[in-house]
Amino acid sequence: MINLCLFGAGRIGAIHARAANSNADVCIRYVVDVHQPSAQKLAEKYDATVTDVATALADSEIHGVIIASSTDTHADLIELSAKAGKAIFCEKPVDLDLARVHRCVETIKVQKVPCAIGFNRRYDPQFTKLKEAISDGHVGNLEMVTITSRDPSPPPIEYIKVSGGLFKDMMIHDFDMARWLLSEEPIEVFATASCHVDPAIADAGDVDTALVTLKTASGKLCQISNSRRATYGYDQRIEVFGSGGMVQANNILESNVVITNQLGALAEKPQHFFLERYEQAYSLELNNFVQCIRNDAQPLATINDGLQALLLAEAAIESYRTGQAVRLS
Amino acid sequence: MINLCLFGAGRIGAIHARAANSNADVCIRYVVDVHQPSAQKLAEKYDATVTDVATALADSEIHGVIIASSTDTHADLIELSAKAGKAIFCEKPVDLDLARVHRCVETIKVQKVPCAIGFNRRYDPQFTKLKEAISDGHVGNLEMVTITSRDPSPPPIEYIKVSGGLFKDMMIHDFDMARWLLSEEPIEVFATASCHVDPAIADAGDVDTALVTLKTASGKLCQISNSRRATYGYDQRIEVFGSGGMVQANNILESNVVITNQLGALAEKPQHFFLERYEQAYSLELNNFVQCIRNDAQPLATINDGLQALLLAEAAIESYRTGQAVRLS
Amino acid sequence: MINLCLFGAGRIGAIHARAANSNADVCIRYVVDVHQPSAQKLAEKYDATVTDVATALADSEIHGVIIASSTDTHADLIELSAKAGKAIFCEKPVDLDLARVHRCVETIKVQKVPCAIGFNRRYDPQFTKLKEAISDGHVGNLEMVTITSRDPSPPPIEYIKVSGGLFKDMMIHDFDMARWLLSEEPIEVFATASCHVDPAIADAGDVDTALVTLKTASGKLCQISNSRRATYGYDQRIEVFGSGGMVQANNILESNVVITNQLGALAEKPQHFFLERYEQAYSLELNNFVQCIRNDAQPLATINDGLQALLLAEAAIESYRTGQAVRLS
Amino acid sequence: MINLCLFGAGRIGAIHARAANSNADVCIRYVVDVHQPSAQKLAEKYDATVTDVATALADSEIHGVIIASSTDTHADLIELSAKAGKAIFCEKPVDLDLARVHRCVETIKVQKVPCAIGFNRRYDPQFTKLKEAISDGHVGNLEMVTITSRDPSPPPIEYIKVSGGLFKDMMIHDFDMARWLLSEEPIEVFATASCHVDPAIADAGDVDTALVTLKTASGKLCQISNSRRATYGYDQRIEVFGSGGMVQANNILESNVVITNQLGALAEKPQHFFLERYEQAYSLELNNFVQCIRNDAQPLATINDGLQALLLAEAAIESYRTGQAVRLS
Repeated sequence: MINLCLFGAGRIGAIHARAANSNADVCIRYVVDVHQPSAQKLAEKYDATVTDVATALADSEIHGVIIASSTDTHADLIELSAKAGKAIFCEKPVDLDLARVHRCVETIKVQKVPCAIGFNRRYDPQFTKLKEAISDGHVGNLEMVTITSRDPSPPPIEYIKVSGGLFKDMMIHDFDMARWLLSEEPIEVFATASCHVDPAIADAGDVDTALVTLKTASGKLCQISNSRRATYGYDQRIEVFGSGGMVQANNILESNVVITNQLGALAEKPQHFFLERYEQAYSLELNNFVQCIRNDAQPLATINDGLQALLLAEAAIESYRTGQAVRLS
Repeated sequence: MINLCLFGAGRIGAIHARAANSNADVCIRYVVDVHQPSAQKLAEKYDATVTDVATALADSEIHGVIIASSTDTHADLIELSAKAGKAIFCEKPVDLDLARVHRCVETIKVQKVPCAIGFNRRYDPQFTKLKEAISDGHVGNLEMVTITSRDPSPPPIEYIKVSGGLFKDMMIHDFDMARWLLSEEPIEVFATASCHVDPAIADAGDVDTALVTLKTASGKLCQISNSRRATYGYDQRIEVFGSGGMVQANNILESNVVITNQLGALAEKPQHFFLERYEQAYSLELNNFVQCIRNDAQPLATINDGLQALLLAEAAIESYRTGQAVRLS
Repeated sequence: MINLCLFGAGRIGAIHARAANSNADVCIRYVVDVHQPSAQKLAEKYDATVTDVATALADSEIHGVIIASSTDTHADLIELSAKAGKAIFCEKPVDLDLARVHRCVETIKVQKVPCAIGFNRRYDPQFTKLKEAISDGHVGNLEMVTITSRDPSPPPIEYIKVSGGLFKDMMIHDFDMARWLLSEEPIEVFATASCHVDPAIADAGDVDTALVTLKTASGKLCQISNSRRATYGYDQRIEVFGSGGMVQANNILESNVVITNQLGALAEKPQHFFLERYEQAYSLELNNFVQCIRNDAQPLATINDGLQALLLAEAAIESYRTGQAVRLS
Repeated sequence: MINLCLFGAGRIGAIHARAANSNADVCIRYVVDVHQPSAQKLAEKYDATVTDVATALADSEIHGVIIASSTDTHADLIELSAKAGKAIFCEKPVDLDLARVHRCVETIKVQKVPCAIGFNRRYDPQFTKLKEAISDGHVGNLEMVTITSRDPSPPPIEYIKVSGGLFKDMMIHDFDMARWLLSEEPIEVFATASCHVDPAIADAGDVDTALVTLKTASGKLCQISNSRRATYGYDQRIEVFGSGGMVQANNILESNVVITNQLGALAEKPQHFFLERYEQAYSLELNNFVQCIRNDAQPLATINDGLQALLLAEAAIESYRTGQAVRLS
């Protein structure tokens, strides 16, 4: 039995708790949250104990921690957990501050504990098949990647204010997918963006509609399209193009039922949002974490991947602010 | 230059005239129709002369005739044209009376003129590809054929009264496709039908919704679905199934534009009716007839195919009337 | 907590056990199987006790039974369980003998226990949406139903020999779907069939490829297409057509990844077989059974539905044998 | 009857000649080409006379000219034809030199003759429907446009050397579509590109794979993806996204036949190249030109559109060379 401590009992914490609970070999022993009622509720659901960080990390029977608390606590919890010798699963982003992320990377290197970052899309069966199709040679030499990633609706403005902005909060997933699929680091980043969805987002200093272009040293190109509001649901498509052809991962629809009449043929919308679309991915991600604890697997996304995605987000922000492309060394 | 005489200047006559005219090697020399204004209008459009049957058939410069007049004139015109040594293209059905069709088959056999029957779907590029896929082995041993064939709306009730009924007028195309794709004669026919679209059709002694099942001696099965009214347009799909897999010819849509919003993803309807859907087929059919006149080709559908399709229609009518399957010898 | 006893620890028993176990309010208390090792294995997995029928039914803490044992035991277990006052979930078919099924129906009527029959497809979210679309008026007056239902490969010949044959074993699901969607009893059944897949199936007195046509009193039509072998996987499509338009439930594919190259655009196959395709349906079916025990719901498929589907299967067999349509009173 | 003179009897000249000839009200009176055999061949096909520029323009019975000769002759022919009072249809690009294009624009303004530029895609029925869907409000406020435009294979290296390069020769169509769909001028252009297809293209100073990002003053965004080689054919897709939803114009396939087997479901490739894909567009474009001559219509693309597209191409070239975004005034 693998014993875990869950830091953070909010929405994403609940997702990981459910995924953990559905793994017969996992026990959620502790739940820690500054908001006691949330901690209490989740603890009851999964027969866990509400406690504090120190107690949880001091318990030698705890094998790993899930860090799903607010972003500003991630780095501290990573360092404390690493020093306590616990395997770490941490939600993205590691931190909004690059220097702080670098220190976490160092700590992990020194403490030699597994540290997985929650880029859940790497575990999605659709994108796994896409990645396999690339490996199997179906696109030949990869030349271009197109990532369409649009949310059904923006988060509350309070969340946006502390999120680090669209590039660090939302597009960071796409930067990670881009790196994963390109298999090569981007060296040039260009970003352009607008605020079309809600002027309050602009007032908060953020954007809600953005295009980013990446280029690698060998000339592979990538374009990313983000919007905080797609009336038709969660739009998650990836297209990879190369010398051999094209591979596309299309949206998964709410059902495969089609209604045809004098207006045309009406198919369903994509699955609404990340809870529905990536339900399997969250489960596979947690199972992978358990295998990492058992030394049977490596995380698909490490803390270094967290750092690299953040570097791209920072470059995109600079590009958007200056209106110029940014080179990465 | 191939000189043709067109019998019948109605809707289907106009289709063939246009197809003929777009072939640079064809001249429509005569138009014959009991309704003089229609003949006149079409003749003017294509620089032809309005005349009568005898004059047209007596003209030794006429190579072939297109019989697109009313069904009750087909058999007479086939026999007269054959005896005048003209190549014949005749719209389906040859005649509503089996004995009469048999006599036409005999005449053609004796006169040795090419005689093509207007089963236009055999010339459709989609179904040609479907047929090729079968020949290329993509379904392995053919085991089942499913034909969905639905009109957007029923013809005028006056037409229905003289049409010979759904099985001889509408499903006859599907019987021909079934024979063409099965490559084997059906020996068992079962038909069931209803009148759902318009009670006037029932009053006229006809049906508007029908399912037919065919079986060949080797056990190949075929199902045909007809309706006189599909709100979404002209539904023309064929699916062929066998030991190797399945090949489907899907509908052609009015465009490939898709509108996606909170309701779902709305694709366009199928092309509205036979004029749009089979425009290319009519043109290829006419070109094939010209090649037949030049002895460069054989008709894809002969007068014997016209006879066989009618035999199936008769069997379906009997099955519908008796409620029992009908065996063909 | 709802306590259940599972009769039958084979493949379908294991499916129901897993579905039951994933419901937090359900406890599988007993497993009964003539093959002790199977019972033992499943019992261990779910912390249940291996016992015999009498002991299980005598336990007053058992609320319901899942009958997933071999078909020849269904009727006895239904009657014993009903008399013991247990709620019953029984796999299809109730029995291969109509008289025996009638007696079960009587027993259930007298004992007044809930009795659900395992027509799992009624619980499938795709078909639920299809049914809702009909209720919501999207097809207008329903006129035709087309059910395509093909297995990836035939079962072992030993299974076929005791299965009751294609019509009672495989197409019975489609008869049930037809009745459910037509919302009216068929009064005419015509069946035609062949043996294309494996001559051993013919030797066993069965067929592997079949078309059935149904007609209701009001003239609604239905066609069913079955094959025991589709190279491309489990083909489960339904199309409903009427005065307002058409609603189709299409296959669910293994993924939505498409590979495009000089050969064309290759989409994935349908999900392989019933375990994958109806995983959600099995879970929802079990949850519905639990709600039935709590008097919070009615089974979507009752023992009477089991009887009616069997009547259609018997009629299809007679039609196939005689070559004639069969009328039902 | 509208009498036209065709300048240029090469591939694109032949396309326009065929489109002109299929319009019953058009007569191609003259064909002019420095390569006499080509002129002769086309002239014979359409009963035209081979002549020289001066003679053609001096003929008062000529209503309009089709300029389909090599790019370096376009500007001269535009000016000569305008001064001779002829309506002008000129293939894109007007000229590779911006100053020269400006002079042509001036001449047209002074001479007041209709001048249509061959941005054929504006006449394509698919894109017309897309444009209508935008006008009809289906995307709400337009926020992003995504244009995927890939050729099946690169042109000969000799053509590339004189073509002006990918941005002026190939992507210029996409710049025009972007302007047409955005209904607002881009003010920011960023281009990134690579040479993946053939090193000879790099040796010729050109690229074969490119991504461009555009932004308008109101913040509308557009991304364009070009490749000179798509193994699967001519990839011509456009997606428009906004506050109301998304409208997509998808590829037209070679047929709608799908082959399904153990590998999956194989649909056909897109129509091979511009001759097939835009056949209808060329015909509608020519018909529009005839209507312009009759003062019954305006060109969908004017010489000013030719100028604006070239300005975007120049900006993209500068952006690619400097690695920085370029602002347009």
